[in-house]
Amino acid sequence: MVTIPYQPPVEDYTFLYREVFGADVVARATDGELTAEDATDVIAGAGEFAASVLAPLQAVGDRVGARLEDGRVRMPEGFAEAYRAFVDAGWVTAEAPVSAGGDGLPGAVRAGLGEIWNASNAAFALCWLLTAGQIHALDAAASDDIRETYLSKLVSGEWTGTMNLTEPDAGTDLGGIRTMATPQDDGTWAIRGQKIFITWGDHDIAENIVHLVLARTPGAPEGAKGLSLFVAPRLLVGADGSLGARNAVETVALEHKLGIHGSPTCVLSYEDATGYLVGEVGGGLAGMFVMMNSARIGMGFQATGIADRAYQQAVAYAQSRTQGRVQGRGAGAPIAEHPDVRRMLLSMSSRIFAMRALGVYVADLFDRADADPAVTPLAEFFVPVLKGWATEDAVALTSDAIQVHGGMGFIEETGVAQHYRDARIMPIYEGTTAIQSNDLIGRKVLRDGGATAEALFAQIAETADGLRRSDEPVAARMAERLDRAVAAARRATDDVLGFAGSPRDAHAVSVPYLMLLGTLAGAWMHALAVAAVLAHATSDAQDAARLTAADFYGAHHLPRVHALAETVASGEIA
Amino acid sequence: MVTIPYQPPVEDYTFLYREVFGADVVARATDGELTAEDATDVIAGAGEFAASVLAPLQAVGDRVGARLEDGRVRMPEGFAEAYRAFVDAGWVTAEAPVSAGGDGLPGAVRAGLGEIWNASNAAFALCWLLTAGQIHALDAAASDDIRETYLSKLVSGEWTGTMNLTEPDAGTDLGGIRTMATPQDDGTWAIRGQKIFITWGDHDIAENIVHLVLARTPGAPEGAKGLSLFVAPRLLVGADGSLGARNAVETVALEHKLGIHGSPTCVLSYEDATGYLVGEVGGGLAGMFVMMNSARIGMGFQATGIADRAYQQAVAYAQSRTQGRVQGRGAGAPIAEHPDVRRMLLSMSSRIFAMRALGVYVADLFDRADADPAVTPLAEFFVPVLKGWATEDAVALTSDAIQVHGGMGFIEETGVAQHYRDARIMPIYEGTTAIQSNDLIGRKVLRDGGATAEALFAQIAETADGLRRSDEPVAARMAERLDRAVAAARRATDDVLGFAGSPRDAHAVSVPYLMLLGTLAGAWMHALAVAAVLAHATSDAQDAARLTAADFYGAHHLPRVHALAETVASGEIA
Repeated sequence: MVTIPYQPPVEDYTFLYREVFGADVVARATDGELTAEDATDVIAGAGEFAASVLAPLQAVGDRVGARLEDGRVRMPEGFAEAYRAFVDAGWVTAEAPVSAGGDGLPGAVRAGLGEIWNASNAAFALCWLLTAGQIHALDAAASDDIRETYLSKLVSGEWTGTMNLTEPDAGTDLGGIRTMATPQDDGTWAIRGQKIFITWGDHDIAENIVHLVLARTPGAPEGAKGLSLFVAPRLLVGADGSLGARNAVETVALEHKLGIHGSPTCVLSYEDATGYLVGEVGGGLAGMFVMMNSARIGMGFQATGIADRAYQQAVAYAQSRTQGRVQGRGAGAPIAEHPDVRRMLLSMSSRIFAMRALGVYVADLFDRADADPAVTPLAEFFVPVLKGWATEDAVALTSDAIQVHGGMGFIEETGVAQHYRDARIMPIYEGTTAIQSNDLIGRKVLRDGGATAEALFAQIAETADGLRRSDEPVAARMAERLDRAVAAARRATDDVLGFAGSPRDAHAVSVPYLMLLGTLAGAWMHALAVAAVLAHATSDAQDAARLTAADFYGAHHLPRVHALAETVASGEIA
Repeated sequence: MVTIPYQPPVEDYTFLYREVFGADVVARATDGELTAEDATDVIAGAGEFAASVLAPLQAVGDRVGARLEDGRVRMPEGFAEAYRAFVDAGWVTAEAPVSAGGDGLPGAVRAGLGEIWNASNAAFALCWLLTAGQIHALDAAASDDIRETYLSKLVSGEWTGTMNLTEPDAGTDLGGIRTMATPQDDGTWAIRGQKIFITWGDHDIAENIVHLVLARTPGAPEGAKGLSLFVAPRLLVGADGSLGARNAVETVALEHKLGIHGSPTCVLSYEDATGYLVGEVGGGLAGMFVMMNSARIGMGFQATGIADRAYQQAVAYAQSRTQGRVQGRGAGAPIAEHPDVRRMLLSMSSRIFAMRALGVYVADLFDRADADPAVTPLAEFFVPVLKGWATEDAVALTSDAIQVHGGMGFIEETGVAQHYRDARIMPIYEGTTAIQSNDLIGRKVLRDGGATAEALFAQIAETADGLRRSDEPVAARMAERLDRAVAAARRATDDVLGFAGSPRDAHAVSVPYLMLLGTLAGAWMHALAVAAVLAHATSDAQDAARLTAADFYGAHHLPRVHALAETVASGEIA
């Protein structure tokens, strides 16, 4: 395997934190406790850690992968040491909310960290992502006992967490869950049932694993309303916090997957395992929803991370490979100078900037919503857009990274094919793209009659107005393209609202509508970047590259909104 | 592995042969020797053979794959028997030209066979595809001796053929080839050098392998003009045709690839191997060009085949899987009825029909060009369009097939991920998409000032005119959409012609231009299908499905041409 050194995108985050979203997005989010400069240091530190500790394990995670031996999942050599170093460096605690005992880094910084862990080693990052999700769920709903016994160990990183939702007949539709939790005399619950697709459901890199399980209680109503949430540890925990006997949870199978081989995907069998109720009986789905938003936004960071890693590998190849003559550049020029290879690289980098910026923007929106509930609708509007659009685009982007390599891209030892395989799960897990688009259309557009969407379009139009007054041609072009794109988005939104009475029409074009909004939001991010560049006193090569990326996005990606708007207008084709 | 039975698309070919391209495209191509009815029988017979013999080996080809043992490539159990059955059934001979001793099936039928071999087992089909390509090359240029000794054995299927072009520093740019062929006293040549990416370069399923090698001769000019073509068998052949000693060709490595594991990709080392000159010294590239067109069109058939197989698997899953309630269909309905799953399935099937029809059309154009040289420019125009567009779209389509499966799509045992991995090589080999688009823009648009493109647009506009007069709403919508799409294609072609003096601009948008033309051509195929359906006396469910597919293509795929036209207009973003 060729391991291309990972280069953390510190400069982009510096630019995003300091300039794109106002003076200092980090200081605003933390009331000045942390500045953009501090945040940049955090990003740089994480990048260094990721490049030196996590990235070197990415290929072995793929090649060797997780193995199931005598009922236990064994991780490849190096994973346990890396996890220990990750915990010791404080990265788990850093991101956990203050209320849970963590350092409570703001969303804008968590976006950067999320990208970096996933870029350097997406399979490893999933372990952290699931733990982080469980921390949020327990922090919102767990009793003091559970907080003390489990949450504290998750926040310290000593134990890891899993989410147990899916069953063979209950994936997208959680109402079909059949796992039962029966109350015991001692106040605990006996959990029985089978859970599938459990990410990091078993492993040997931490001393205990805390499963968060959705189950049905006796006499509970049918469907999702009858679900409750339970904590079930792999090793039972004594009153003094000591680890005891094994709980009745068995890893009965390990999936053989297309990608992320370094992330064990388990079938877990609960055989009257001891569980502890989290929150109220029947409040399971509400508890899961707490982690849903953060997990879905997290997928946006993962999309950016995997995409950027694939891009970095494509750039490294294109800059080192020479072949034949390159138009306008002569012989001996690297293929990166070839117009079509340059097109592919710009296509990738311009989309990566768009999703990176949108990740920071959306994560920050949630921080702003904590202080100002009026921001909440827009923040929640963007969850399915970011998750759906970024993951779909990232898959396409990893395919471009292969294409840049020509025949070498198809050879596994080159390493770029791993990103293509790893990326493919992203539009599926944490809710497929269709689930995201149904959420978008149902809860975020139809429910408020398009008010949030229109508020967004007005903001984008305002950004375009600002650019129109510039004498920089890129700014002028961006303004003109944004205006037309906003008009298309408004028409498409009207079409969706017009489908209110015919849900099949709405849902048949919900994915195109989501992709339209994501593509437009990406252009908006570039427009904000152009405005930030133009506000500079000086202009350097980095600034010029930002203008080129924005112009490229406007010429190659943004026009898709017009095609998508035409598709949305058609409703279901019957 | 789940092996979904392969269902050959006999009905579609019947429709294409009898109705879409005139009364009977097969009878026209063969001067009545073969009718559409005969051709349908051939397709049905091939489909039966493929479904029963080739398709069952597809999964084992992937899982076990080709292995290199003691310098020989060993194929999984069953491949040798399948190849023998393939040869005994006469399928190799059936497609070979009459001049080479084959049955000379017309292009329209070869399109169908090409799809079927690739759909049932793409890795296996590559062995046949390379042999077929070599048959064309030898038929065009080889001496009587070579025809008698080698060509006859290839046409009978007893031996298989390979193409040896690529070297570590000569892939896209063949001018960089360094392999040397030195004349010997006995009239043979000693070949020395290393060739990479040699598909089916070694194997154990036929008694001999004939390598067709591009090499440089002593004193030859630099670049592609200095290349000559040689035949070098794996086992030397005696004057009486008997097999003798091993030639000095070693398989030094076998690539570990993302997909098509059942197709051995070899590194071959020529160590003064005995070769025989094919054609003239310095005529190597011309000889290779003979097989280029047929190999590239063949990639269009492969794209259709892999795409259709992935689609069939997605349909089978979506029709058998139930989950939750489906809008407008109630509980217990399969997910195929869900609006978004239905969208994905229609998205796939409508593109597959488009590429299948275009494959038949282009293959038939070459037959027509044999009789009428005026047709040649249009036939050659379509080679890069079909190859580039169909293979790119097929990759995206296999990704859709995974998405339909949800989480199960990511599990290798489901089998659908294999198509996604197998498909990824198609936009790379036989000339990357960029190579196709450069060929399109350079040789097929700029060279004749856009005359061929305009002749095509006029034909498409004529089809639209015919539909406009219909009172069937699908026809009217298709006509309106085609008109706008043709206008966009004309503008884009004018833009490309405007870049005549700035080749970097032309090449920076050549891939978008190619995709625009492919997407438009696909819509044209649907328009011809709509016209054929409307010409029917009766209308059945199959006809209704064809109208729905056309309408879907018009609403979901065709609008891309407008986005692509805007991209083409931008030239290189600097």
